[in-house]
Amino acid sequence: MRKAFHEELDKVAEDLVEMTRLAGSAMARATTALLDADVSLAESVIAADAHIDALREELDLKAIDLLARQQPVATDLRMVVTAMRMSADLERMGDLARHVAKVARLRYPKSAVPAEFRSVIVDMGHVAETIVTKAGSVIAARDLDAARAIEREDDAMDDLHRQFFERIASADWSYGTEAAVDMTLVSRYYERFADHAVSVAHRVIFLVTGQYGPDAEGSHEDSEDSPANGH
Amino acid sequence: MRKAFHEELDKVAEDLVEMTRLAGSAMARATTALLDADVSLAESVIAADAHIDALREELDLKAIDLLARQQPVATDLRMVVTAMRMSADLERMGDLARHVAKVARLRYPKSAVPAEFRSVIVDMGHVAETIVTKAGSVIAARDLDAARAIEREDDAMDDLHRQFFERIASADWSYGTEAAVDMTLVSRYYERFADHAVSVAHRVIFLVTGQYGPDAEGSHEDSEDSPANGH
Repeated sequence: MRKAFHEELDKVAEDLVEMTRLAGSAMARATTALLDADVSLAESVIAADAHIDALREELDLKAIDLLARQQPVATDLRMVVTAMRMSADLERMGDLARHVAKVARLRYPKSAVPAEFRSVIVDMGHVAETIVTKAGSVIAARDLDAARAIEREDDAMDDLHRQFFERIASADWSYGTEAAVDMTLVSRYYERFADHAVSVAHRVIFLVTGQYGPDAEGSHEDSEDSPANGH
Repeated sequence: MRKAFHEELDKVAEDLVEMTRLAGSAMARATTALLDADVSLAESVIAADAHIDALREELDLKAIDLLARQQPVATDLRMVVTAMRMSADLERMGDLARHVAKVARLRYPKSAVPAEFRSVIVDMGHVAETIVTKAGSVIAARDLDAARAIEREDDAMDDLHRQFFERIASADWSYGTEAAVDMTLVSRYYERFADHAVSVAHRVIFLVTGQYGPDAEGSHEDSEDSPANGH
């Protein structure tokens, strides 16, 4: 039975890795749609999110079925519960990519991104793609060092987020409040995307060590020093 | 065993109701702190969030213990898994209240709220308090009609959120971009708070009927027609 259980659990882990791939692709495409004001690319990201949602539902049903049939205890039980939490994080990451795409669609045929912010958006897109790809590797390989390294990517995202807010709130902002609103939300979507990736990595640490990462219970908390959250 | 199981599950439901009470209190106090630029009230909301987090952790450990010891199947199993999802929603609602409090603290001794927005914030605070209180009643009484009525509160919140964004993006905005950023984020925090309350209600519908509410899988989705998300 334990063999069958672990085979099924491996299948769940594969689905989680696939979800990281889809969430990463969604955010990469959403970033391009946003930068290029490409409405058909934006539409495709928005439409594709249903697939991530379906995968999550399927994965969760599989996990519940596994709990019912195999009645796991101890570490095995913890693995199944943790997989369901990861699927929730990854589904939310898909939602956040869709939100970025919707900002692109909203402002089309204009670009939502003032010229001076293109490079920060490019950077945020890169960090998002890197962090979710690493989260996938962490799940696939249960690599603790890689899981801990994800914190550094998240720090990079927080720095970008902070730059964004400092610039938006500066006295010489000249792009109007519509752009300020768009950029505030977009920046927050990227930051939350990275937070959920960190949460996934912390859950892997928990699975392997039995200890939560610093913030792994619940979604990774918004950075305490984020200008958006009160400093 | 089933009797013992249901007694323990009742205790979990009581903890969930307590979490709704704490999240509601946190958001009510955060709203007051924001409106009154009351930094000590804001600090108390920020500090109290750790209690909600601890309650969630305790509840989840209890649920995992219940799975391991009682090995529930079918509806019983579904209830335990759903309780864990509700605790995640409620913990996040506490985080969002804390975020509102942090905006108040950030701008102290100034008020973060331009005078003309006080009434919208008051309304958002009221809807937030009503919706989380209703979510508590829904959990306590498993009242399907009340669960469905929560949608109406959420519609009210979406309307307020939309008003906010239209106003912020209007040509005669005169409060500067810092206020635009603050109000964008605050409005989103309230909207997400309501979304999670809807998610809790949908999960109760699922427990009672076996059918998910329209959006209950995962967190309640941000409203598709929210101006912040692409319309």
